[in-house]
Amino acid sequence: VTSPPTEPIGIALLGCGVVGSGVVRILAEQRELLRRRTGLTFDVRHVVVRDVKKHAEHAGILPLSTDAQAAIDDKRVWIVLELMGGTDVTGELIERALRLGKPVVTANKSLLAEKGTQLFSLARQHETCIAFEASCGGGIPIIHALSTGLLANRIDALVGIVNGTSNVILTRMTRSGWGYEQALDEAKQLGFAEADPTLDVSGRDAAQKLAILASLAFNVQVAEADIHVEGIELVDAVDITFARELGYVVKLLAIAERRDADRLSLRVHPTLIHADDVLSDVAGSFNAISVWGHALGHALFYGRGAGQMPTASAVVSDLIGVALGTTPLAFKRLKIFPDTTAPADVLPFEQLETRSYLRLTARDVPGVLAEIAEALGRNGISLSAVLQHEVDRGQHVPVVITTHLAREGSMRQALREIDALTTVRPPTVCLRIMDQPKEFGVS
Amino acid sequence: VTSPPTEPIGIALLGCGVVGSGVVRILAEQRELLRRRTGLTFDVRHVVVRDVKKHAEHAGILPLSTDAQAAIDDKRVWIVLELMGGTDVTGELIERALRLGKPVVTANKSLLAEKGTQLFSLARQHETCIAFEASCGGGIPIIHALSTGLLANRIDALVGIVNGTSNVILTRMTRSGWGYEQALDEAKQLGFAEADPTLDVSGRDAAQKLAILASLAFNVQVAEADIHVEGIELVDAVDITFARELGYVVKLLAIAERRDADRLSLRVHPTLIHADDVLSDVAGSFNAISVWGHALGHALFYGRGAGQMPTASAVVSDLIGVALGTTPLAFKRLKIFPDTTAPADVLPFEQLETRSYLRLTARDVPGVLAEIAEALGRNGISLSAVLQHEVDRGQHVPVVITTHLAREGSMRQALREIDALTTVRPPTVCLRIMDQPKEFGVS
Repeated sequence: VTSPPTEPIGIALLGCGVVGSGVVRILAEQRELLRRRTGLTFDVRHVVVRDVKKHAEHAGILPLSTDAQAAIDDKRVWIVLELMGGTDVTGELIERALRLGKPVVTANKSLLAEKGTQLFSLARQHETCIAFEASCGGGIPIIHALSTGLLANRIDALVGIVNGTSNVILTRMTRSGWGYEQALDEAKQLGFAEADPTLDVSGRDAAQKLAILASLAFNVQVAEADIHVEGIELVDAVDITFARELGYVVKLLAIAERRDADRLSLRVHPTLIHADDVLSDVAGSFNAISVWGHALGHALFYGRGAGQMPTASAVVSDLIGVALGTTPLAFKRLKIFPDTTAPADVLPFEQLETRSYLRLTARDVPGVLAEIAEALGRNGISLSAVLQHEVDRGQHVPVVITTHLAREGSMRQALREIDALTTVRPPTVCLRIMDQPKEFGVS
Repeated sequence: VTSPPTEPIGIALLGCGVVGSGVVRILAEQRELLRRRTGLTFDVRHVVVRDVKKHAEHAGILPLSTDAQAAIDDKRVWIVLELMGGTDVTGELIERALRLGKPVVTANKSLLAEKGTQLFSLARQHETCIAFEASCGGGIPIIHALSTGLLANRIDALVGIVNGTSNVILTRMTRSGWGYEQALDEAKQLGFAEADPTLDVSGRDAAQKLAILASLAFNVQVAEADIHVEGIELVDAVDITFARELGYVVKLLAIAERRDADRLSLRVHPTLIHADDVLSDVAGSFNAISVWGHALGHALFYGRGAGQMPTASAVVSDLIGVALGTTPLAFKRLKIFPDTTAPADVLPFEQLETRSYLRLTARDVPGVLAEIAEALGRNGISLSAVLQHEVDRGQHVPVVITTHLAREGSMRQALREIDALTTVRPPTVCLRIMDQPKEFGVS
């Protein structure tokens, strides 16, 4: 295990954008609080940025430089905080630090989802560690929870709202009846969505976080490619309205569930959840992660999933854990990190049994519903509810159907048959419904 | 720090009631999972009970005995799990273990609220530790969160629903419009309330948990006597109905808030919270703890606050943390435990500024409202809303008033004046309203 640092603890900070500035701010403003609580003092030896001129507000205050390697190599640097993002160059810098036996704290979910296993392994080889609380759920201490307080549990399911941007958009669509594009525009204006929001709204960001969280919860290796991903781009305001009428709220969920013995279903998609599910109340830029443990039952961790100070809070808590020695000790002893576990046995998405919400555009002629029900029945899918409002005008009407549990593969086949009907105008919209996982064993 | 244990780790279990049996069950059923995750194996050497005959189901399976001292003293016992409850005898047994340098895991909130400071100090003196995740919030890993993931934050407020019994009763009253006695009877029948429910419904159990949580969050010593406590016995169904009409839900909250520089307001009382506050959705026997950190903003931890397996989950997670060495290390290094901090500077309840909900029974004659408003005005209290329904019959009508922020002491004086009015039938009901604490610094 990394030997205890001498005081004050030398830090190299790679990247001084939004989160990096927040870390600097906590270390400066809460210096006395941190010293009193932990006995530790910190000394930011290097702040590595791409262009020193762009950080005029820090000039003369922070030890700015552009040489990451020199900063990492500096003997007075005991720990490296990586907050620069990116995967290629960044990955090499982290490897450099680990090879020198220096612990790394990172918020870089893309990097961990892609190269986590190798990096963890390298850290172990060099008797140091990686801490990554800030990579998932911003300030929510979910990584800590999975590696301490929940350890006595076989985890049955982990379900999270882990992308703030998507949740801001869906919350606005739900509360104000806005369409997707309008809600996205507002999110951009308010700084909740980037100019190119693809990573967030496509579900990919959520999938990267799910890869990290599921690997810890289920003690398996999860690659991003193991995860079935659908984004929120195609969610229509009308589906949110129909969902509400049926008692549901639409959320982008990242789901990892134990199914069929030890097979793992891994998916990110817009999902209808019951209005009385706690997750349905997670609004705006807040994140929340629900965990079902065999002994614990249902637990939920809620908080700000992004933003400068919440994320900096997670980075500094990792810094403390590493410097105290508790994080290196847990990293060394626990066999929950992906370099110590085997690849996940992933249940293919087509084999997943799930409930669905369908919205069909049907011609308003007799017998249409019978044809649709027949197509579903042929594929072994039974209906749970049907919603069709009286309409006066137009030849086409929306018909909403919810189903009981059915295989995703059967549903795909049924949808092909339904969309081939002359009485239906394709494409039929299909969203999944998630009922709360049962609590086993809890009493 | 407690030296690393040799394998398997010898355990003395004091008490084998509901929670103790759950711990035994996890250790037996999840033996392989725990070994794989942590590298640890456990050996329950002694299960100490009051009367061996009453544990016939465990005879021949568990090493039952009645001699706690011998169990603690056994050289093969490395750690003591105290799940017997009580304070006097139990306190002495825990002291005995600590004097031998043996770490103690306990779920005993009464004992910690009463003697925590001395016991922590004794543990430190003998270079061992006490772990107590199970003492607050059942399976919710809130103690872990306060001592790891939230460490970078100056905590501004901690607000919890931490008594399951009271929450079961209030939830039933809210959902079904039942009175207190009827809801209490049902809770007893369902096993959510004890035959003598005083400790729970009086707010005392919540106060003991608040003493523990606030001491960690604010790094001060908190005695139960520092906390202003009101229970739910006097909450009337009609107040829950009026509250809903005003957009509020009534919950028994345990509140610790930083006020006026570093003074701490500590209180447990039935509270009106906004229907859109996440805490308002915490139903039945679930618990939740909201924390506001200066960097983190609002975070919430939700889960089963009691019950066999959730509480056992917390006990076993503590057992793992202690055996791995992370908990002893944190206990040694962090100055957040009450034996390392100073007594809290408590804001007297009369000096607290808070909003109130008043329900008066007033004679239905002209000028009553003016008299009431005058009494409030004389004491510097301004009205936020008034609710009075048209009634056909009877001389007395309920008048509901909500106020802006006012000193509790002023409110007490105003209530004395109001209840002395000939047009008002005393006593006037007074509940507090809590608006969500602001998030400072978060971005």
